[in-house]
Amino acid sequence: MHLDSGFAERIVHWISPKGKEVKIHFRRLVSFNVKELFAIDIKVETITPVEEVKIVSTVNGDVTNFVDKDDPRVASGHAKRLQVTETGLEDGVAIVKDTTYVTELKVVCVSSSALASGNYDYDSRLTETALEETYVCAGHETVHFTKYAIYTETLRHGENVVDEGLVLLRQVQDKSFDELLEDQKAYLDVYWKISDIVIEGDQRVQEGIRFNLFQLLQSVGKDPASNIAAKGLSGEGYEGHYFWDTEIYIFPVFLMTNPEIAKNMLLHRYSILDHARERAREMEHEKGALFPWRTITGTESSAFFPAGTAQYHISADIAYSYIQYYLATKDEDFMKRYMAEVLFETARLWEDTGHLQNGKFRIDDVTGPDEYTCLVNNNYYTNVMAKHNLSWAAKIYYLLDETDSDHLKEVASRLELTETEVGNWQIAADSMYLPYDETLQINAQDDSFLQKARWDLKNTPPEKFPLLLNYHPLTLYRYQVLKQADTVLAHFLLEDEQDFETIKNSYDYYEAITTHDSSLSSCVHSIMASKLGYPEKAYSYFNENARLDLENTYKNKKDGLHMYPHSPQV
Amino acid sequence: MHLDSGFAERIVHWISPKGKEVKIHFRRLVSFNVKELFAIDIKVETITPVEEVKIVSTVNGDVTNFVDKDDPRVASGHAKRLQVTETGLEDGVAIVKDTTYVTELKVVCVSSSALASGNYDYDSRLTETALEETYVCAGHETVHFTKYAIYTETLRHGENVVDEGLVLLRQVQDKSFDELLEDQKAYLDVYWKISDIVIEGDQRVQEGIRFNLFQLLQSVGKDPASNIAAKGLSGEGYEGHYFWDTEIYIFPVFLMTNPEIAKNMLLHRYSILDHARERAREMEHEKGALFPWRTITGTESSAFFPAGTAQYHISADIAYSYIQYYLATKDEDFMKRYMAEVLFETARLWEDTGHLQNGKFRIDDVTGPDEYTCLVNNNYYTNVMAKHNLSWAAKIYYLLDETDSDHLKEVASRLELTETEVGNWQIAADSMYLPYDETLQINAQDDSFLQKARWDLKNTPPEKFPLLLNYHPLTLYRYQVLKQADTVLAHFLLEDEQDFETIKNSYDYYEAITTHDSSLSSCVHSIMASKLGYPEKAYSYFNENARLDLENTYKNKKDGLHMYPHSPQV
Repeated sequence: MHLDSGFAERIVHWISPKGKEVKIHFRRLVSFNVKELFAIDIKVETITPVEEVKIVSTVNGDVTNFVDKDDPRVASGHAKRLQVTETGLEDGVAIVKDTTYVTELKVVCVSSSALASGNYDYDSRLTETALEETYVCAGHETVHFTKYAIYTETLRHGENVVDEGLVLLRQVQDKSFDELLEDQKAYLDVYWKISDIVIEGDQRVQEGIRFNLFQLLQSVGKDPASNIAAKGLSGEGYEGHYFWDTEIYIFPVFLMTNPEIAKNMLLHRYSILDHARERAREMEHEKGALFPWRTITGTESSAFFPAGTAQYHISADIAYSYIQYYLATKDEDFMKRYMAEVLFETARLWEDTGHLQNGKFRIDDVTGPDEYTCLVNNNYYTNVMAKHNLSWAAKIYYLLDETDSDHLKEVASRLELTETEVGNWQIAADSMYLPYDETLQINAQDDSFLQKARWDLKNTPPEKFPLLLNYHPLTLYRYQVLKQADTVLAHFLLEDEQDFETIKNSYDYYEAITTHDSSLSSCVHSIMASKLGYPEKAYSYFNENARLDLENTYKNKKDGLHMYPHSPQV
Repeated sequence: MHLDSGFAERIVHWISPKGKEVKIHFRRLVSFNVKELFAIDIKVETITPVEEVKIVSTVNGDVTNFVDKDDPRVASGHAKRLQVTETGLEDGVAIVKDTTYVTELKVVCVSSSALASGNYDYDSRLTETALEETYVCAGHETVHFTKYAIYTETLRHGENVVDEGLVLLRQVQDKSFDELLEDQKAYLDVYWKISDIVIEGDQRVQEGIRFNLFQLLQSVGKDPASNIAAKGLSGEGYEGHYFWDTEIYIFPVFLMTNPEIAKNMLLHRYSILDHARERAREMEHEKGALFPWRTITGTESSAFFPAGTAQYHISADIAYSYIQYYLATKDEDFMKRYMAEVLFETARLWEDTGHLQNGKFRIDDVTGPDEYTCLVNNNYYTNVMAKHNLSWAAKIYYLLDETDSDHLKEVASRLELTETEVGNWQIAADSMYLPYDETLQINAQDDSFLQKARWDLKNTPPEKFPLLLNYHPLTLYRYQVLKQADTVLAHFLLEDEQDFETIKNSYDYYEAITTHDSSLSSCVHSIMASKLGYPEKAYSYFNENARLDLENTYKNKKDGLHMYPHSPQV
């Protein structure tokens, strides 16, 4: 794996049982320049005399995801997500067309191959779901095979998936693999110049960090049609869905290094704003936008609502990332065209979800980041993030009113937004209830959390982790036990909301009952430990995270990499 | 429908389009004396000359339940619950064997028919799933057809389902339908003598009450192999499952009128005690028994745990019914043999589920009777019922220690029960936390209920009811709105726990936010309104309930009758 030049390389030196000897040199790249391109280059070098070299190249549209019915983190429901609708071979170009099951998006692969070899026999076999091409070369020579595959799909290429694929294929297939590699390297030179982090004195961590930076770049969507999946491009876990982890865990890295990519991540959310409005109506909110817990095309794909849709905080998380973008870039045009609308619509959601009681604005029946505690009232994280969302929505409204009232009028009129509403946002923000426990001097995770019994983590046998695979949700919900950072994360994101002592007390309290069963957890603890004066803890968490996937810490590498924790240590 | 003699009668006087005229007289009975017997009697009387009368009699084992994917109250999952394994016809006896899908119980129907007619042609057709018999009689005569069907199944008849069915069939088929009716009437004479309720001056309510009393008798299990299903024997709704409604809503009627039936209901629960122990282990309780939310054979059949398994109160409800039985019958033998064990095991569940904090025993993360409020801490109903359960378990332990310590030793040794545990039950009961709001002077439904926003019932359009069909659970959980009596029911069952004023305040408060979307609700409100001095309200609720099924109030008669509310008004 060449992180500097962006391709994977494998050299196999093979001696057959009968003593025949070959060296096979594989190189594969997924292009950063032509996002649709996947190319493979194979050189077979015969060392002892070989009579025949046979290369079988297949494009198979009939794939099925891995399923484990005992692991809720892996695909639920049916594992077949694609249905082949057509296969064809024309003028040396193979075409395999699929449709996704639920959303009926088209996905097409057009591909061609080139064989640089003296002479060979060619044969092809077309089935209903695949194309198989066979090249048989006479021996005693080096065989050099290159394959160019272009993937197009409805979200980016509309209805002309095949034609656009063919155009792209023609553009790339005249380039040699080495020429493609040069383009790839040029792209990466720019990336590493801006994004590299040099760690002296610890080669293992240096390797981990660079691996993560490369994976982040490779996985993130680079246009508004996509975002970043929980497993990146590396596996089927979570079925390619986008979560809140995008905004809170990954977005900041790109914001600081590649703001154009960060902007595209926000534009993707903007592109699904209408779906979020519809979802809010489905959930009986008269106004506002509720972003889906997990999605690709914008509709809610979460089936188990207590740990899914109930995580309303995702809407505040998205608003938070817009605000961060604005603070970092001062992009006034973006603020006017996109951010204002997203902030107004998410603020409306909070106004409609919460309610004032005895002078306090309360938000009931939600789930915070910690998935071992579901359906609670006044989750500190949710309330403080909603407060931020509401107060910024009001702030932007008043700012626009001063600086570009014509534009504000247009937006307000389109959204049927009144100044009374905006006033209510400010009231809700100012009177937001943030649970605080006088005795412990910490922010309570929610209204009921601190009254529950504490889970005895010390006496839980190691084989019982992760708890979610070994205990019923009802049991987990009954105790003070965390899957992941929750209040601690809120303190990281909005540190001005509490004083240092409270944040430190909270950290000490919650750390003792946190399992880090989610990969979103110890990375946050690493940062906070560092802030709060626990350098050894910080370094230990950091180490753990930096090589999380390289070491297969969570024992589920088969499902794909953990993209989200790759970011925070960066 | 003859409530006094126990059969259904229908007379059809039919003139065909061509002017042919017949009178058809149907009589059907499900026997109280031979529980396995269903008999049909048909007389066809020709009035104008008729050339041919053809009777087609079928036993079809291949049945499918009604499904409505938009109604969570009706069957979820697959609707095919039975699979035909064999059909046969031998010596005039038809045999159709089925197996239930999940539990693989055998269900067999053996049947024979008799035709009293001068002469007729007979034909039969056996398919893989059904038997069809055809009788063609010459015209000008009265045709009299009787069919005897015996249903046997694994739970009662073990592996010999066919043989036992044949024995029973032989016993009944020599009796004429009129003789069967005499036996039926004799059984009912006894029932009505004990159970009838005479209401003067309101014929409609009288009719409703008698209809309900008859349905109750018909539906209730009369041996320990069965209990009473949510829809009785009248429909497929809730798939024949038994719920807590058995103990709290139906049991008291039989306890007061037919204690033998009441005893069988308790014995059924005792027969599934081992399953309840296993279920407690599955839910990570080291000790005790957790009865399943819905079941037939004893295993948990609930798929959606927030409104299913989380209703831990069912275990206290079952304990409550044992205590009621003991109080009413003083049956010391039953107490020793069954009740002590059930009370001990359910008390252990509470001890393991709750925890002491600041001197109060708290029970977290359960759902009370009200299904519009799920996964809460310290539901008043659950806590007060658990308190009752715990204190009676300790009381019975100490009573046995005094009166029959040898027996106690045997039970305690078998259950590995220590006196320390019993002491802890007493402590838990004595320090049980029962939420109370000082301002409203009512018992709070749970720790968080009164801090939520109130649902605006007055401005909810009528077509939005029942709310569960029109709102997402998350929305319902977010508000103060009740599907059914919860704290009000607790006040009815354990009225000594609070003073009259608190009970009255609670009633007034909760009634205003109760939808009665569950049929378990207005019956309880009727009783409590009467107790609390609201005779008009009481009478109105009573009227509503007395004819609930006759008027199809819930618009879901197709799924079957509402058995549970039939009882409380009785």
